[in-house]
Amino acid sequence: MSGNLRIDGARLVSRLAALSRIGATPEGGCRRMALSDEDRRGRDWLVAELQGLGLTVRIDAIGNIVGILPGREEGPAVIIGSHIDTVGTGGRFDGALGVVAGVEILATLREAGLAPRRPMAVIAFTNEEGARFHPDMLGSLVWAGGLSLAEAESGHDAEGHQLGQELARIGYDGPERPGFLKAHAYLELHIEQGPVLESEGGGLGAVTGVQGITWLELTLTGRPSHAGTTPMAYRKDPGLAAARITLRAHELTGLIEGQLANVGVFRVEPGNVNVVPERIVMTLDLRNPDDARLAQAEAAIRAFCAELAEEDGIGVACRDLARFPATPFTESLIAEIERSAGEHGLPIRRMISGAGHDAQMMARLCPTAMLFIPSVGGLSHNPAELSLDEDMIAGANVLLSAAWRIAND
Amino acid sequence: MSGNLRIDGARLVSRLAALSRIGATPEGGCRRMALSDEDRRGRDWLVAELQGLGLTVRIDAIGNIVGILPGREEGPAVIIGSHIDTVGTGGRFDGALGVVAGVEILATLREAGLAPRRPMAVIAFTNEEGARFHPDMLGSLVWAGGLSLAEAESGHDAEGHQLGQELARIGYDGPERPGFLKAHAYLELHIEQGPVLESEGGGLGAVTGVQGITWLELTLTGRPSHAGTTPMAYRKDPGLAAARITLRAHELTGLIEGQLANVGVFRVEPGNVNVVPERIVMTLDLRNPDDARLAQAEAAIRAFCAELAEEDGIGVACRDLARFPATPFTESLIAEIERSAGEHGLPIRRMISGAGHDAQMMARLCPTAMLFIPSVGGLSHNPAELSLDEDMIAGANVLLSAAWRIAND
Repeated sequence: MSGNLRIDGARLVSRLAALSRIGATPEGGCRRMALSDEDRRGRDWLVAELQGLGLTVRIDAIGNIVGILPGREEGPAVIIGSHIDTVGTGGRFDGALGVVAGVEILATLREAGLAPRRPMAVIAFTNEEGARFHPDMLGSLVWAGGLSLAEAESGHDAEGHQLGQELARIGYDGPERPGFLKAHAYLELHIEQGPVLESEGGGLGAVTGVQGITWLELTLTGRPSHAGTTPMAYRKDPGLAAARITLRAHELTGLIEGQLANVGVFRVEPGNVNVVPERIVMTLDLRNPDDARLAQAEAAIRAFCAELAEEDGIGVACRDLARFPATPFTESLIAEIERSAGEHGLPIRRMISGAGHDAQMMARLCPTAMLFIPSVGGLSHNPAELSLDEDMIAGANVLLSAAWRIAND
Repeated sequence: MSGNLRIDGARLVSRLAALSRIGATPEGGCRRMALSDEDRRGRDWLVAELQGLGLTVRIDAIGNIVGILPGREEGPAVIIGSHIDTVGTGGRFDGALGVVAGVEILATLREAGLAPRRPMAVIAFTNEEGARFHPDMLGSLVWAGGLSLAEAESGHDAEGHQLGQELARIGYDGPERPGFLKAHAYLELHIEQGPVLESEGGGLGAVTGVQGITWLELTLTGRPSHAGTTPMAYRKDPGLAAARITLRAHELTGLIEGQLANVGVFRVEPGNVNVVPERIVMTLDLRNPDDARLAQAEAAIRAFCAELAEEDGIGVACRDLARFPATPFTESLIAEIERSAGEHGLPIRRMISGAGHDAQMMARLCPTAMLFIPSVGGLSHNPAELSLDEDMIAGANVLLSAAWRIAND
């Protein structure tokens, strides 16, 4: 039966367009930062859509919104989800596509008069982006029991607004306990946010897991001095050390399989043309699908910093900003997604997710997998973020097939 | 006769202490930014000191203050000078020492009842530091005819105050034409502002000239991308290019004789941990006593940037921020200073000035030389800037001997 099921592509595109109008920016992107007025309006729209399908809508205490299609049997549900919050200068697809696809999948089943054996649900998690409140993936982390409700609610945004108060203000401090709906499996459709699928000629991505992430902040301290009056041999220049560390990090990406590295933050004090820097603060974003290799890269950087400290007399302080182990997804679900793509005659390749997703938190609770569609130009977190209608429709159809089979196995 | 002349060391130290109290900061430094109220009080103090010695005090249209001791003959004067303005977080010695030493030298001659053959004068130039108004060495540049009065007066500080109006506000828009006093020679005593003399065991520095300076601003443009989802091979990272340029610049200091290099400014856009930078703005401060070698270093950097642009697809734009050729001082005057040090039994070594000074502008007009005394720890432009009393007194005595001889040759 599942092979014949198809979502309504035009309706998927039109639903996403409707959500995109909420918080639309002049640049063509979206700004629906978590628990803002725009987020509230996006949530209200979502709740109305779910209610319009006759689904049971339940809100939990951290604001996660759940729409449930009852199964023929009681028991854990097959959950499809993502998020509708965006970064400050976000696009129209990141997160929103996954939620809207879930709505469309349940709408398709409703219209076809099909009831799955297991309950099915769509979920929109609170504050996935982490652009307003820390940490990112907050709603799914609380859902999975990795962060207490009290701790999550006590967080503040940059203007000092408390998360719990903002949640109440917009009316989404719901009555349910986070995690109230037991999960049989979790599936998430998402844009790739990178250039791999497009450059491989399109097609879908069966995501095998989320790579491990280590964020380090290095503070390098030297001796400020006059760039005209201080001979080179008398200088202790942390900027030179920072340049060496940057190159070393990039060198490691060629030496350690699967390793990525980025220096995204680089601040110089005092920052005058003619003053040899006193202090550099820089960050390293290290990622690897393999935790042991990630640890190897981090150890190599730390050893290199220790060398610089000893040889050049530069003070090096290293602070952990974030640390997430790699999250492998569930082989049987990855295979279901590949099988569904095959049924639809769609090319699919296995790939790792470079970014974090709610699926990573859900993987603590239940079998989990993700499906990627191409991002034009690899762009994301950008008003110009774009995925093609045909790719979105293809992704939603593959997800429908896989979810339906899992809900009836 | 000159061999017996000695300044009053205690009075020199006490005069400098008196000037230091004007604009004194809690950190032990001085803040007398050009044409501020503190600068006005410093100028008033200086004028009163000069008048107290019975000298003719004249102020020119850009606020340069001149105290003149008539000679037995008419004609060009032997001028001793420096400046009394400071940077925002300045010390007590930079500039002030040279002016106070000039006052003390003329006071010594007055007390001894000695009249030189040629006129002698002390001068305090306006806005040497360039910390409030551009360019630095403004007063001496106008004096030397390198910048018109109208152009100098039209400059604004960061708050929008016009230089000409500030000059009038503090009452130092004098009646004299800048450069009105013809110069036979110019001498300047200054702190080294670097670590060389101290690390060589103390002693004085006979300054052979000011090295050439080239300031470049590089803007490197790549392609912003997600540090998790973008494989290394797809990135165009201007931060990596910037690190390579930093190392290349330092490498050149080992390959080109006398070459200095500093990267003092380094800004990253957008500056997020997980975003591969879109743009880096960095500065290069290149210095060399030899203009040809300085040009060689600049050409090597530009060639390296062109290579990076071609190989890595990084956009490189290069803007000149400043460009001063090397200024050699006058051999006969350098030799006079060395001879004077010898008469006083004081060790002296030849050295280049790493920083710019008013003497550099005066060298356009007349034979010029400078004398350096050690800076403790090489510190300058810093409240902790310090030179020892014995070194200041030694420097003033050597300058007195040299100036007296030149004024009577």
